[in-house]
Amino acid sequence: MVLTSISNALPEFSSFYHDRIQAELKEIIDGNPSALYNMLRYHMGWQDEHGRPYRKKSGKFMRPTLCLLSCQAVEGNVLQILPAAAALELIHNWSLIHDDIEDAGYERHHRPTVWKLWGQSQAINAGDAMFTLAYLGLLKLKDNGIADKKIAHSIQMLTEAVLQLCEGQYLDITYESRRNVTIEDYLDMIAKKTAALMATSTSLGAYLGSEDGKLIDSFYLFGKELGIAYQIRDDILGIWGTEDNTGKSANDISQKKKTLPVVYGLQNSNHEEGERLLKLYSQQSIQGEHITEVLSILDRLGARDYAQDLVRQHCRQALAQLGTTGLDPSRQAPLREITHFLLERGY
Amino acid sequence: MVLTSISNALPEFSSFYHDRIQAELKEIIDGNPSALYNMLRYHMGWQDEHGRPYRKKSGKFMRPTLCLLSCQAVEGNVLQILPAAAALELIHNWSLIHDDIEDAGYERHHRPTVWKLWGQSQAINAGDAMFTLAYLGLLKLKDNGIADKKIAHSIQMLTEAVLQLCEGQYLDITYESRRNVTIEDYLDMIAKKTAALMATSTSLGAYLGSEDGKLIDSFYLFGKELGIAYQIRDDILGIWGTEDNTGKSANDISQKKKTLPVVYGLQNSNHEEGERLLKLYSQQSIQGEHITEVLSILDRLGARDYAQDLVRQHCRQALAQLGTTGLDPSRQAPLREITHFLLERGY
Repeated sequence: MVLTSISNALPEFSSFYHDRIQAELKEIIDGNPSALYNMLRYHMGWQDEHGRPYRKKSGKFMRPTLCLLSCQAVEGNVLQILPAAAALELIHNWSLIHDDIEDAGYERHHRPTVWKLWGQSQAINAGDAMFTLAYLGLLKLKDNGIADKKIAHSIQMLTEAVLQLCEGQYLDITYESRRNVTIEDYLDMIAKKTAALMATSTSLGAYLGSEDGKLIDSFYLFGKELGIAYQIRDDILGIWGTEDNTGKSANDISQKKKTLPVVYGLQNSNHEEGERLLKLYSQQSIQGEHITEVLSILDRLGARDYAQDLVRQHCRQALAQLGTTGLDPSRQAPLREITHFLLERGY
Repeated sequence: MVLTSISNALPEFSSFYHDRIQAELKEIIDGNPSALYNMLRYHMGWQDEHGRPYRKKSGKFMRPTLCLLSCQAVEGNVLQILPAAAALELIHNWSLIHDDIEDAGYERHHRPTVWKLWGQSQAINAGDAMFTLAYLGLLKLKDNGIADKKIAHSIQMLTEAVLQLCEGQYLDITYESRRNVTIEDYLDMIAKKTAALMATSTSLGAYLGSEDGKLIDSFYLFGKELGIAYQIRDDILGIWGTEDNTGKSANDISQKKKTLPVVYGLQNSNHEEGERLLKLYSQQSIQGEHITEVLSILDRLGARDYAQDLVRQHCRQALAQLGTTGLDPSRQAPLREITHFLLERGY
């Protein structure tokens, strides 16, 4: 497998999709006059907290881009299914707004989080509104000539993904206070919390663009493997990435997140190191030289290499799933390229 | 209009619906093996916090009951649309779980709230799962032979109601810190926060049971007026009801809720009383003789009678809307009876 160099931008071709996804999202969110939606516009990076226009590097739109690329790969009509792509991004952003409250995260993309500015109550409610708009997005498929049967089934696919996301989030919160989280437990959690929505992004794109059931299953598994790889890469960046790249105010060690490298560390350390790690992770937060100490234990155990190997492995499995579609290689190319990007991405 | 005496139970006939709604809800929630759903079962009153069976007076199932009665009134098949009725109850309970966090409510029906037992993070996520299951409920209509077109439109109706609910909740939180909330502002807020879902309960029942568009509009307006009356009656009980009836640990005065009687009081008091009320409502919480003082100001201004007059007025408008359906009086009778119950209910 040829590896591209570390990159901070999605492949060139995805900007075509990016602008259209953004326009569709704006149409869905701006259709509502209530001031409630200002919080949503702020979160999306379109305005500042006073409602003034704001220009920032907008989100990657990973999920909707994967949805559209999958639709295109099966020769579907990409422009027709834009509202479904937007719905995936809205679901992702609902989960971010609520996650930021649940994790007490102060910043996202170098800006205060919604709850930090408007308080927890308004932020819970703003997240709920974002969630609801996702369903409105899927219902908009009707205006684009998609049949009711396909709309109902798309809603079923999204709803099942969201339930998995909630189940994964439940596990994630539970693991925070558990000593004995295994790598298997961890992979089960991210399969639900992250990979289910990615799998639904690719399979929904393929479903709306084609009628072939077997093809849709392959796209689901492609997205699922990609999602697992994506999350583990995120875990690596959460520990070894720079703040400038990740846009987060504190890294996963200071926040005591038991992400894959830490779970690996706890499972593979000798008794003394293991007890030390647990002690460090039982503090209110991990600061200063204790961060250095955790890093040194993880490095000694090869946790980073282990994690990146897993990323590589799941990317390979993703590509294998894509191969089973039997689609013309030129049709698979953009999805292969995006897989390579995710493997080595620096943010 | 004949008034029934104060009552703590829905009319007799509704127990037929109650058991079936409960069974449908259990089927939707129990279909999922994750331990996440234990929090939902606890909230619904089916088990205690350790997962042991629990018997309590279960919820009134007001919204699903209205949905089924409306379906029956238009000669629809009540058993066929049970999953839609359950979906309305799930949406209502999502809003309760999140409201309890947003209002920092410690108890509901004499039991600790979900966030009080499992923490805010798990409770936000449990609410999100409850929300998602509502959509799964609507999708279950397919198993009962409802056409995709009707399912998609039902989802549209519910989604629009939920957006209004979020907008109403946004206003409600905003009003907490605003001095000058008018009765008009307040009625606008409850129309969104409470009445939209009641209106959707009645209109969804009528929609799934019939094809007549004009009929559905009348049912929407019937439910909306009923919802406004229901909320104002709730406001009265929140101040003058006993804890035993309402199941809440503290009344709306101590929690400084600016419900209709208080908004009326602020708007109709002389300068001195108005300033005194505002001062009392600017405290951290209102306790002891300050509660008595608020009650005495509200009583002197006739706030309770004003509020109950409004309840009566909206109930009358609800019945007028029901009258415009032109349905046989015997078909309207259960809905009329439930309207009378809501007018004077003691819990």
